Amino acid sequence: MPENFADRLMAAIKAKGAPVCVGIDPVYSRLPADIAEHKDLNDEFDSEAAVDAILEFGRQVIKIVAPLVPAVKINSAFFERYYWEGVEAYYELIQEASEAGLLVIGDSKRGDVGSTAEMYARSALSDPDFSNLDDMVGPDAVTVNAWAGLDGLKPFLDAAREEQKGVFVWVRASNESAAVIQDARLEDGMTVAEHLARQVAAWAADEGLTGKAGYSCLGAVVGGRNADTLHKLRAIMPQSIFLVPGFGAQGASAADIAPCFKSDGTGAIVTASRSVIYAYEDMKYVERFTSEWDKCVEAACKDFITQVKTALPAR
Amino acid sequence: MPENFADRLMAAIKAKGAPVCVGIDPVYSRLPADIAEHKDLNDEFDSEAAVDAILEFGRQVIKIVAPLVPAVKINSAFFERYYWEGVEAYYELIQEASEAGLLVIGDSKRGDVGSTAEMYARSALSDPDFSNLDDMVGPDAVTVNAWAGLDGLKPFLDAAREEQKGVFVWVRASNESAAVIQDARLEDGMTVAEHLARQVAAWAADEGLTGKAGYSCLGAVVGGRNADTLHKLRAIMPQSIFLVPGFGAQGASAADIAPCFKSDGTGAIVTASRSVIYAYEDMKYVERFTSEWDKCVEAACKDFITQVKTALPAR
Repeated sequence: MPENFADRLMAAIKAKGAPVCVGIDPVYSRLPADIAEHKDLNDEFDSEAAVDAILEFGRQVIKIVAPLVPAVKINSAFFERYYWEGVEAYYELIQEASEAGLLVIGDSKRGDVGSTAEMYARSALSDPDFSNLDDMVGPDAVTVNAWAGLDGLKPFLDAAREEQKGVFVWVRASNESAAVIQDARLEDGMTVAEHLARQVAAWAADEGLTGKAGYSCLGAVVGGRNADTLHKLRAIMPQSIFLVPGFGAQGASAADIAPCFKSDGTGAIVTASRSVIYAYEDMKYVERFTSEWDKCVEAACKDFITQVKTALPAR
Repeated sequence: MPENFADRLMAAIKAKGAPVCVGIDPVYSRLPADIAEHKDLNDEFDSEAAVDAILEFGRQVIKIVAPLVPAVKINSAFFERYYWEGVEAYYELIQEASEAGLLVIGDSKRGDVGSTAEMYARSALSDPDFSNLDDMVGPDAVTVNAWAGLDGLKPFLDAAREEQKGVFVWVRASNESAAVIQDARLEDGMTVAEHLARQVAAWAADEGLTGKAGYSCLGAVVGGRNADTLHKLRAIMPQSIFLVPGFGAQGASAADIAPCFKSDGTGAIVTASRSVIYAYEDMKYVERFTSEWDKCVEAACKDFITQVKTALPAR
């Protein structure tokens, strides 16, 4: 019987020494020359060749970061872009990351009303229930859009409870234009995001979801750089682990994300995607490693870890 | 050059004489015996056999409803449930519906921040840009989750403008538990859904999206049964066509959905899914057609059309 997801995530963070996650958002036009110029993979306009290239890149990134980080976040959009073959590659990468000992977060932000959400919970989170896919595993956790309220979330929570998996509700987006919806203020002075956070806190308190350390399998995606907002969200959702996007390419710094952590240094896992996986486009790394793209990615991942650690409260 | 999506949808509704849409949400365990007991398809626990059965059912439903309705809404969740093979079947069904002369709405409710939304807009709405998928078309319109605000919507609007397609923002869900988020009241007295509707109205007014009849390619998914809410949403979004779920199985009646229409009878398209495609489970139809499931579906589709017409203002 696997442990509660929140406990597993805490243990993995402890083992690797850093609350970080590498996001895999592969875009063909940004692939390293080694891969994009390979004779079988060098056709951006053939979806099969392109997806093979994307998959090869994802595999290599996983190999590079697996010794360094506790988790990867695989963004389904970048795979769906290649239709069913992309989706097959998405699941293949989940297997590889899982076999490499990483916790895997499927970043698919699905959300719909009850009967539809049941279907999404099956494909986006659960391990398959088909005899011909017996060896396949689903991700350890998934991001979910809770616009439809508890009905839409329930199938995901059921899967989390039954299969010891995790769910991160998308509470606050990392982009500026989200403010129009998420920072709108309610009658009682709360913002819409804070109001959603209140619901998440209530849902997260379910005993069947809570691990030994007091954290729930129901976490929250919390982006944005307003310290006041982050402090409030941290206080509203004491049992939820925050998955924090926006580090690096999207502009968030260590100081920006510090309020996502509790005073004991737990409570959040920070993700960086483009700033790590495309580090070979960054002159800072190119100057050191020239065309050895894998070394650029490794060095950027280590730098990312160092930066996040400076955000943690001194112990 | 195809026409503006809003104009195409209005023309298709006029041609078929009814503002209705059949939703295809196929579940293996509810398939007609003809299909579920077919020797090659009768294995719910083999994802390949199951998806073949689902696809066969979808094809037959399309054949039955194509002469009667202007559009179908294909729910991607029910296909994703079968992983990449399900996704392939989803796109195959889009082709078949399109070839049958139907407008096709992809109900995938994707939503994320900018760079991710670009990928979703490509796979969920655009026609493919790959040489090996040259003959394939995307859906004519897609449902989108706008939690991330305009950034996340923009790639879909760009595709709508450039490829004459449509976008329906999920403004109000049809399930009760959505009220906790969507009916929360802002400082200015608006609900969160009404506030989102205000944004949709502003975004929809873009000239490049507006058709000859004054409607925009940016529509709204509007569910729920509160007449007051529906009247308000109709007033807030004058240029948006409403895609109205919840008819039939989810309990909405003709009277419930009447406020989604303007006084000239335009402005909405009503969808029914389970009450039509599973009509052979309904004794009312079984008594008339016994095991001829296709006749049950056809009769239920005709009854659905008749019911929706009673909701339209007399002219």
